[in-house]
Amino acid sequence: MAEIELSIRIDLETGERIGPGRIALLEAIGKTGSITAAAASMQMSYYRAWRHVDELNRILAKPVIASSRGGGSGGSTTLTPVGERIIALYHSVQEHTRSAGRTEFQSFRKLIRS
Amino acid sequence: MAEIELSIRIDLETGERIGPGRIALLEAIGKTGSITAAAASMQMSYYRAWRHVDELNRILAKPVIASSRGGGSGGSTTLTPVGERIIALYHSVQEHTRSAGRTEFQSFRKLIRS
Repeated sequence: MAEIELSIRIDLETGERIGPGRIALLEAIGKTGSITAAAASMQMSYYRAWRHVDELNRILAKPVIASSRGGGSGGSTTLTPVGERIIALYHSVQEHTRSAGRTEFQSFRKLIRS
Repeated sequence: MAEIELSIRIDLETGERIGPGRIALLEAIGKTGSITAAAASMQMSYYRAWRHVDELNRILAKPVIASSRGGGSGGSTTLTPVGERIIALYHSVQEHTRSAGRTEFQSFRKLIRS
């Protein structure tokens, strides 16, 4: 039977969106400590990654990442508590959906061409 | 407090997706009885709408729409039982997600810039 996965996207009344791509980008930044490395790991340009982060920072009341410049390693980028929280909330909603929608998913799978 | 809405997208292992746009298109076809009219109501080209429907038909075990040609009105397009079922399942999962994720949504709203 076909495997199906679920993505959720949060749509704000301003038309802005927080979806799986932006969450994956934040996670990659948290993992790599760098927008450049995170962008590369997602086959995304630095500019595009930066734009996503910038938009998240405008959407949210507080920034999602913090950068420290200079130092031996040339500075690093870390997730702020708000960045971490957004990731956690996203996964929590996704988990809820998976368990709450189990019956529908089974019906859905049966309609997929095998 | 900011209003937020939720979209879900179903990702198949083949890389194909069924999301809010395709569901809205099916609903518009059901309402208007025509791909042309449905596409126009969504500011979408006929070709693009047709491609979405064609891909849904390939993904699913049975077609989502049925067309009757000719006749006084020049034929019409209706949703098949599978088309209706996909729409219903999608909304059911979305409803479950809304209620199951209520706590997270409240936390989430607090993080949005007001």
